[in-house]
Amino acid sequence: MIVAEKINAARDHIAAFKNIAGEGFVFADEESLKNYGHDETENLLFLPDVVIKPRTAEEISAIMEICNTHGIPVTPRGAGTGLAGSALPQFGGVLLSMERMNSILDIDERNLQVITEPGVITEVLQNAVKEKGLFYPPDPSSRGSCFIGGNISANSGGPKAVKYGVVKDYVLNLQVVLPNGDIIWTGANVLKNSTGYNLTQLIVGSEGTLGIVTKIVLKLLPHPKYDLLMLVPFNNLEKAGEAVSAIFRAGFTPSALELVEIDALQIVSKMLDSVAVPVNDSIAAHLIVEVDGNHLDTLMSEMEAISALLEQFDCGEIFFADDAQQKAELWKLRRRVAEAVKLAGYTIEEDTVVPRAELPALIHGVKELGKQYHFHAVCYGHAGDGNLHIRIKKEGSIYSLNNPEIVPALRALFTLVKSLGGTISGEHGVGLIQKEYMDIVFDAANLSVMKGIKKIFDPNNILNRGKIFDL
Amino acid sequence: MIVAEKINAARDHIAAFKNIAGEGFVFADEESLKNYGHDETENLLFLPDVVIKPRTAEEISAIMEICNTHGIPVTPRGAGTGLAGSALPQFGGVLLSMERMNSILDIDERNLQVITEPGVITEVLQNAVKEKGLFYPPDPSSRGSCFIGGNISANSGGPKAVKYGVVKDYVLNLQVVLPNGDIIWTGANVLKNSTGYNLTQLIVGSEGTLGIVTKIVLKLLPHPKYDLLMLVPFNNLEKAGEAVSAIFRAGFTPSALELVEIDALQIVSKMLDSVAVPVNDSIAAHLIVEVDGNHLDTLMSEMEAISALLEQFDCGEIFFADDAQQKAELWKLRRRVAEAVKLAGYTIEEDTVVPRAELPALIHGVKELGKQYHFHAVCYGHAGDGNLHIRIKKEGSIYSLNNPEIVPALRALFTLVKSLGGTISGEHGVGLIQKEYMDIVFDAANLSVMKGIKKIFDPNNILNRGKIFDL
Repeated sequence: MIVAEKINAARDHIAAFKNIAGEGFVFADEESLKNYGHDETENLLFLPDVVIKPRTAEEISAIMEICNTHGIPVTPRGAGTGLAGSALPQFGGVLLSMERMNSILDIDERNLQVITEPGVITEVLQNAVKEKGLFYPPDPSSRGSCFIGGNISANSGGPKAVKYGVVKDYVLNLQVVLPNGDIIWTGANVLKNSTGYNLTQLIVGSEGTLGIVTKIVLKLLPHPKYDLLMLVPFNNLEKAGEAVSAIFRAGFTPSALELVEIDALQIVSKMLDSVAVPVNDSIAAHLIVEVDGNHLDTLMSEMEAISALLEQFDCGEIFFADDAQQKAELWKLRRRVAEAVKLAGYTIEEDTVVPRAELPALIHGVKELGKQYHFHAVCYGHAGDGNLHIRIKKEGSIYSLNNPEIVPALRALFTLVKSLGGTISGEHGVGLIQKEYMDIVFDAANLSVMKGIKKIFDPNNILNRGKIFDL
Repeated sequence: MIVAEKINAARDHIAAFKNIAGEGFVFADEESLKNYGHDETENLLFLPDVVIKPRTAEEISAIMEICNTHGIPVTPRGAGTGLAGSALPQFGGVLLSMERMNSILDIDERNLQVITEPGVITEVLQNAVKEKGLFYPPDPSSRGSCFIGGNISANSGGPKAVKYGVVKDYVLNLQVVLPNGDIIWTGANVLKNSTGYNLTQLIVGSEGTLGIVTKIVLKLLPHPKYDLLMLVPFNNLEKAGEAVSAIFRAGFTPSALELVEIDALQIVSKMLDSVAVPVNDSIAAHLIVEVDGNHLDTLMSEMEAISALLEQFDCGEIFFADDAQQKAELWKLRRRVAEAVKLAGYTIEEDTVVPRAELPALIHGVKELGKQYHFHAVCYGHAGDGNLHIRIKKEGSIYSLNNPEIVPALRALFTLVKSLGGTISGEHGVGLIQKEYMDIVFDAANLSVMKGIKKIFDPNNILNRGKIFDL
């Protein structure tokens, strides 16, 4: 466990911060600092010097002006559900919690758009637009607690991404406070935009290192009327991976296509005391397949055709979720895998992504690396996108940033991913814990451009310093 | 007509360029310079000093090293079909034509991806992947002649964008030669990517000002099996605009939803000597509505439901295209509108885009501005996206960049567009001819960031200088 307690100039400005954000929204007590010093990334704690909970972009602008003038580090934070350490205040300073900027400002039914503040919980936003018959698809496993602003920061995905795309595919326009306090809109509230550089897409996924997102304009879709769900067991993990690629090659686009290795399913079933899913020793993995749309008969025939296809890959008996409750049970199992596996001692969720058809090679390679580096790995995730989460367990070894027991194993894993045409993060971001490995996927010329862009936005390197890369 | 014939250092290096690209692929004769001095933007001609037709990224890298060292302007060019002057060599120097980099390198059927060089004609690429059952949707009107690289440069759209998105939604990874000669890949060949800044999306739509795209990795879809097409007349232009928004609010997502004002349709019908479309004096505009998918019965019922909806907006008798030939006729009419209207003396295709429901207000406003500024406007375009092309005709006035008869009218038009939540280019780019108006949609802080990014990529400002903005 790393505890950083660097004292810096942030505390000298507490009176000014209170003047801006209000007396009751600036904190420097030990408990607050601890609460905001960690996220869902294991074993990392960095204490900020001051926690501020602003309400408006203008307040943030005023805070940034002070911090920029005095070189005070600032770390923006959503709900703290991140898995890459992107919101950890590694250098102390000001922690800006977006939790009070939690209003949905306008659901524009005429244009199928929503304008929201960043501190709205993703599922709250999804439910609010669903009440109007509208659909915001990106739904990370943490959707019940994560903030939409954090999703922008990480370019989050989730199970629906395979059909509907990730966060970046829904962001039309962003209001952003720059490190110098300037407030800009990155684009316009339109579906097509070829006017200047795409700053919107540059901000999405930049993990709070370029600016602080204060308003978000998202594209919405009409909500599909029906969905069907099935669980498909396989005796062979790589066969399951091959089946994934075959589904798309046959012309189907499921609305979710998830893979859960049997170890993971057993762990989560035990945690949830669930008996909904038949599990036996010969099963190696399950695929979860969902289709959605507006015509139930069409969906039924699609499900049948996909089932017939999967049988060619030696799948076991397919379990169809009959009603809303069974679907909810199945999704609960899938969504809580990470939490369960983490509790079982598997550490740090890797977020590898490869071209979809390379999934069998990745799965095979991970198991081989496990033998070589003496770890046990469980795999699960968004197989339809080639986005495989991997958690490893190495007896006697606890995760820390530079653990010499673990770093070489992860380096070998990411080198494998790169060799398969993939990269190190599909939806979590690089943050603190992956930046060590950026050289595997980017060469010096590329990193130099990224660092140059960072310096344009943040010449004093005050905003989320040390994330993605060191300058 | 502007003719720029600045002599600069480019010609001093012809021997070196020939050494790199080959004796037969470097040109300085008058005819070549003229051929590459214009695009489809009216009345603009800027002669380069040297035209080079490289074959590889490595050749381009070597050329860029020379030009960067000596401060020689370089303008990359696709097929020259641009409508914003983005490929015009305003400052002379080297014109890099990508026409020889025209190989489709790999159609990856396992991963539904294609890797291509930039000089492939868009329709050639679409047909090549269609032969494998795959679908690359973005199809600008010029798809029969434009290059895929130019589409990347402009972030092109086309009729299918309303359901399938624009070019940016298909680009997974790009090989780019930077102004200093470095060759980078911007990302990875994966469907989800949260690894570092999204340089891929920064390059898309940057109009050749940041780097020269030399390889392109595109996502593909399974090709839909069926499509249905109808033409719907309206007696009132604004009612047609209202109908567009209603279709989406009712939960339909057509694969194309185009609007053509009657003047435009009459002009193009005359040019093509077409009798396929019934035209009469009471009609103000037509909507072209297409749906596509894999289930014909579903599409039929969707078309019926959309028809019933449109009748609520006082549409006239709907014409259904019965067979492939009728569909082709209809699409030919739509695709050749711009050319016909241009020949009829309507100058410069504006590329306005607003939130979809603001279309009636935009159409109304354009007509009002016409009265005020004494121009006649015809409107057509991708109504489903809110992307309306507008061409204006002002008696006795010929378009030029700074024509004092036209600039105030366009400024008023773009100010209206901005007030409706829109922006000045949906799919053409800013290039040379819209940069005058960038201040309407972006404030100084935003432009300052964009210019900063340009300087990071191109500190000597050699690459497509003077496009989008002046530094």
